[in-house]
Amino acid sequence: MPAKLKTAVVGATGYSGFELTRILLRHPHAETPVLLSRGVSEGSTNLADLFPAISGNGGYPLKPLSWSALKEQGVQLLFLATPHEASRALVPEAVANGLRVIDLSGAWRIKNADWRAIYGFKDEGSAIAAEYNDKAVYGLPELHRDKIAQATVVANPGCYATTVILALAPLLKADLVDKSKGIISDSKSGVSGAGKEPTAKTHFVSVADNLSAYSVFGHRHLGEILEQLNLNDGELTFTPHLLPIPRGILSTIYLQLKKESTAAEIESVFRDFYKGKRWVRVFANPKLPEIQFSVNTNYCDLGFALAKDGKRLIVVSCEDNLLKGAAGQAVQNMNLMYGFDEAEGLQ
Amino acid sequence: MPAKLKTAVVGATGYSGFELTRILLRHPHAETPVLLSRGVSEGSTNLADLFPAISGNGGYPLKPLSWSALKEQGVQLLFLATPHEASRALVPEAVANGLRVIDLSGAWRIKNADWRAIYGFKDEGSAIAAEYNDKAVYGLPELHRDKIAQATVVANPGCYATTVILALAPLLKADLVDKSKGIISDSKSGVSGAGKEPTAKTHFVSVADNLSAYSVFGHRHLGEILEQLNLNDGELTFTPHLLPIPRGILSTIYLQLKKESTAAEIESVFRDFYKGKRWVRVFANPKLPEIQFSVNTNYCDLGFALAKDGKRLIVVSCEDNLLKGAAGQAVQNMNLMYGFDEAEGLQ
Amino acid sequence: MPAKLKTAVVGATGYSGFELTRILLRHPHAETPVLLSRGVSEGSTNLADLFPAISGNGGYPLKPLSWSALKEQGVQLLFLATPHEASRALVPEAVANGLRVIDLSGAWRIKNADWRAIYGFKDEGSAIAAEYNDKAVYGLPELHRDKIAQATVVANPGCYATTVILALAPLLKADLVDKSKGIISDSKSGVSGAGKEPTAKTHFVSVADNLSAYSVFGHRHLGEILEQLNLNDGELTFTPHLLPIPRGILSTIYLQLKKESTAAEIESVFRDFYKGKRWVRVFANPKLPEIQFSVNTNYCDLGFALAKDGKRLIVVSCEDNLLKGAAGQAVQNMNLMYGFDEAEGLQ
Amino acid sequence: MPAKLKTAVVGATGYSGFELTRILLRHPHAETPVLLSRGVSEGSTNLADLFPAISGNGGYPLKPLSWSALKEQGVQLLFLATPHEASRALVPEAVANGLRVIDLSGAWRIKNADWRAIYGFKDEGSAIAAEYNDKAVYGLPELHRDKIAQATVVANPGCYATTVILALAPLLKADLVDKSKGIISDSKSGVSGAGKEPTAKTHFVSVADNLSAYSVFGHRHLGEILEQLNLNDGELTFTPHLLPIPRGILSTIYLQLKKESTAAEIESVFRDFYKGKRWVRVFANPKLPEIQFSVNTNYCDLGFALAKDGKRLIVVSCEDNLLKGAAGQAVQNMNLMYGFDEAEGLQ
Repeated sequence: MPAKLKTAVVGATGYSGFELTRILLRHPHAETPVLLSRGVSEGSTNLADLFPAISGNGGYPLKPLSWSALKEQGVQLLFLATPHEASRALVPEAVANGLRVIDLSGAWRIKNADWRAIYGFKDEGSAIAAEYNDKAVYGLPELHRDKIAQATVVANPGCYATTVILALAPLLKADLVDKSKGIISDSKSGVSGAGKEPTAKTHFVSVADNLSAYSVFGHRHLGEILEQLNLNDGELTFTPHLLPIPRGILSTIYLQLKKESTAAEIESVFRDFYKGKRWVRVFANPKLPEIQFSVNTNYCDLGFALAKDGKRLIVVSCEDNLLKGAAGQAVQNMNLMYGFDEAEGLQ
Repeated sequence: MPAKLKTAVVGATGYSGFELTRILLRHPHAETPVLLSRGVSEGSTNLADLFPAISGNGGYPLKPLSWSALKEQGVQLLFLATPHEASRALVPEAVANGLRVIDLSGAWRIKNADWRAIYGFKDEGSAIAAEYNDKAVYGLPELHRDKIAQATVVANPGCYATTVILALAPLLKADLVDKSKGIISDSKSGVSGAGKEPTAKTHFVSVADNLSAYSVFGHRHLGEILEQLNLNDGELTFTPHLLPIPRGILSTIYLQLKKESTAAEIESVFRDFYKGKRWVRVFANPKLPEIQFSVNTNYCDLGFALAKDGKRLIVVSCEDNLLKGAAGQAVQNMNLMYGFDEAEGLQ
Repeated sequence: MPAKLKTAVVGATGYSGFELTRILLRHPHAETPVLLSRGVSEGSTNLADLFPAISGNGGYPLKPLSWSALKEQGVQLLFLATPHEASRALVPEAVANGLRVIDLSGAWRIKNADWRAIYGFKDEGSAIAAEYNDKAVYGLPELHRDKIAQATVVANPGCYATTVILALAPLLKADLVDKSKGIISDSKSGVSGAGKEPTAKTHFVSVADNLSAYSVFGHRHLGEILEQLNLNDGELTFTPHLLPIPRGILSTIYLQLKKESTAAEIESVFRDFYKGKRWVRVFANPKLPEIQFSVNTNYCDLGFALAKDGKRLIVVSCEDNLLKGAAGQAVQNMNLMYGFDEAEGLQ
Repeated sequence: MPAKLKTAVVGATGYSGFELTRILLRHPHAETPVLLSRGVSEGSTNLADLFPAISGNGGYPLKPLSWSALKEQGVQLLFLATPHEASRALVPEAVANGLRVIDLSGAWRIKNADWRAIYGFKDEGSAIAAEYNDKAVYGLPELHRDKIAQATVVANPGCYATTVILALAPLLKADLVDKSKGIISDSKSGVSGAGKEPTAKTHFVSVADNLSAYSVFGHRHLGEILEQLNLNDGELTFTPHLLPIPRGILSTIYLQLKKESTAAEIESVFRDFYKGKRWVRVFANPKLPEIQFSVNTNYCDLGFALAKDGKRLIVVSCEDNLLKGAAGQAVQNMNLMYGFDEAEGLQ
């Protein structure tokens, strides 16, 4: 039996980082990950105290980040579940220290400086930023499998972006979409997508029995969606909404076809595109996915409905925002980078 | 002090009928309504036993429906919170017995036989159906105040339809909308909109932690929306979703303007249209309504966002589906029909 | 028509203070309350911006607290929906300025210094504290109606405490309870009871799909419960739990009777005690109240079950924690203090 | 590698049966289970259509129940996730056909005819019933590990019962409890515990934003709790409540100790009892379990609080009602019956 992969995780105390840690703990080809946290002192904090769901096995101490310690321990792959500015700083350092990196933040996802501008990165324009903007591979396995396998730095996609890109890529590749009519993605996410920090917006009383749209025309994920789909600004409108559920995303996507089509044709476009791609499920028309079906799985589920006119098409795309939308996809990328089966650890 | 209005309600045991009854019980110009139920025997059922929230005041017995009894009691106005086929049968009888009627079902909302076809009414094509299709006034006070005041039969609008029509009417009237691009209403409703009958779809475990689209391209409310807005088939796509909340609707509506505009221009179109209309609140740009703001009120709340291109417009429209979307609007119509202040009983 | 009562509210931006404001806005015998906030500057903040549910009527500006301004405006009654230390400071000042006060905090509820110790009041032991500890009347109208009517300072009861005291007072007064066996109140509250401040505990993801016990053996409301019921320490165990709902409390209370009894006897004890008391509903055995029945009402609902042994008794007590548990009860007290009908403004 | 265990499941379409199937599908020592349903015809129904969460792998057809077919297929172990009357009929037949059985219903849990009477079994008093009442082993591994290993018929415990028995067994075994004071279990369960059938009680609108007690003094699980704990009628009061969450149980258990004790003593009683017992987690005092910690795990989590008087003790016990409360425990029993590691398939 070959030696297991040695990994480390920075940010295991957030929702995505914790899910990632849970997956790595049961991954058959990975050792128990080294858990790192900026700003903890040795032995002060145990992940099982923060998330009692994983208590009962002796606990998982958080360690301060030290490149030399990681080297000594033989860590090969570093996961970053950190805020984007932290990832801008950490990724170059990690690579300089001989690590491959999967970054779950939005730090390195976008090549186009215009789309990247919304983040206002502090290092924008520097040589190191330019180098890593270039080096990072967008970690959507269904689009970039081969590049991911070779990558030093993988920029793990945004949760919303995953649902929208996977829903539209097959149709755009087949050149079926009348972009002049505009594409709409009306997207709805559970609250874990907003992160663990307590705010007025995430207070239970603000969210329960409610629904609200936010970041209308200005959400950060828009840039990576446009870039990955080769769309121009204005061709796609993306509106996120905050759902009163802990986890899961459903995007309802509206577009018009260039010419009349049939449901059978559309379904075959999806099936052909996703043939052999383990973590996308295409629902047989007229069935539509629901959030519940994908929660606690690594699937992105796709279904569609075509109007009687044969031109107006609605695609419904669902995933668990913490799995296919974050931690599960990160492990899927790890599997590709190290030659494991794409489903390993994710079933 | 003038005599109070005498009303009766058929269907007080459903969600809308119960809300209606609660409003009538506290309406200063209406007597305690006579509560009727098809298929109960005298004295067998008390509304307070079914809805303990209103217990403690001696109770509200349900009575069997009898036209002669209603006449004797001097009832002037009948509310129907009944399934649509029941309303098709009851409305002509009620009018023949000298009553004015406000019908909360979909029975009499649509003039255009094509849009009506989706209901498959059993009496379609009969002389009496034709007469009442014609006679019924669509009960959206913000569009048809004068006709409602004079009406014998008011067809109270659908819950979804109210949010969509009120959001679009001002823009279409001002001829701002490029219909060729298509209008989208992505609408989300709480579960009370699905009615009180227990089904697999309304089971708590099916709804909680979930979101699902349904009746895609085929929901019954589409017809009344198209008819009220003078839109052709295919110009508007309407997709309902089931939200894990008890009550409230949010519709996110997407359209493109014929020519570039400013937020100030759009806001003034809305403000002009709804000037003096008590139950629509226009939010100052860029504020957007949320479901919580309108729940337990009779308001329809409208807000909008305009893209930087000045052409892509998103309107967000919210209401309580049981109030402005049903029972509250019915009482608003009653207020118009009898010359009361439009806000009476609804504050 | 007599002049309306002039009131002011400090703390209208919290959950209880906002509910209180909504009730006062529609109270027929009260003017629009003056809304005060410590630390706002004139004209800087409008309550309708914080709670868009009440927008649409021109807004409700918050004003800085000024005793002289209140005097000029002729304000007679001050409501405090403030943290308890703030109320300790403000109540004596308000009375010195000629105002009557209803304080919704825990500042002045407890006479017994031992029970009060858990609050650790900074002014404990001072002459002014002693004076106001003595002067304040515990504002539970079903127990202290006459004293409240005459009171200068009313200490509005705690939300949990209201459900427990109202459930037990009739049985203890009738000397039916075997205190040696211990009384248990297993109480469950919606999240608004935890206040509006965002914390890890009130984050949606922490509360949804969860239930947790907290403050076991050490909740602040225990003291006022024991004092009002004349119980010794240890005779009652009170355990609060955090429910994944926005509002409402249900307490399940367990006790043993001194001697065998019948359901009819128990029911008559409750009915006799609450005869003529408008805001307590006694459910006919074997019906039990549920949280939904009392939410959005000012009722405390009581029901019970007696074991076949005739001795083990369970009382279920429900209320809306923001109404009968806070703001509604405050207005009920106001009604008593000014000779209005006890139900005025609360229906 | 030894041949894998061949199992079959009757009732995979219910909540517990479906969870059981999911576990068996990933169990390393079990083959894909044969899925049986009373009243389906061959090939008519696929579990993946009913639960799209498990679609994407070719599907799981339901087959009609046939003893001869099971024999031919070499099935060794039959799981019954059926209503209790169905289990009363099926268990003897299964054993007669050479199968071992794990029954998830309440059919065979209780030896004492008095406690069993609440079920009103149709075959009560028959010879076959007497034989199987005697033969069945109560499937709580933490109490009956050895008997389970040898059992032909395992009666899998009730979900509520598991939380109460595991919380109390260590204390009663150590003879610490003053039974004369009465033991209370105030238990709260998510809605999946009420089963999949849509009823007025399980309608989303009835459950959401609500809490209610039910089956007070008369729940079926009381009998098995008393019997397993050797308690007399009246010594334990058990009150279930319906929580607005899909899954999970929390029981808050109140008792008095015979003599003063310390938290350290109590904790060691729990730790000693559960030493080496993989699926019970004892929380270090004063930490208390919450429902979220155990959901989606097979753990029963226990924590406690002791009053300052050293005598009043509260134990909080949590589990996932579909896992440790049903399907997970069934697989734990299977592991014991076939000599697998007790944690196999459950991590």
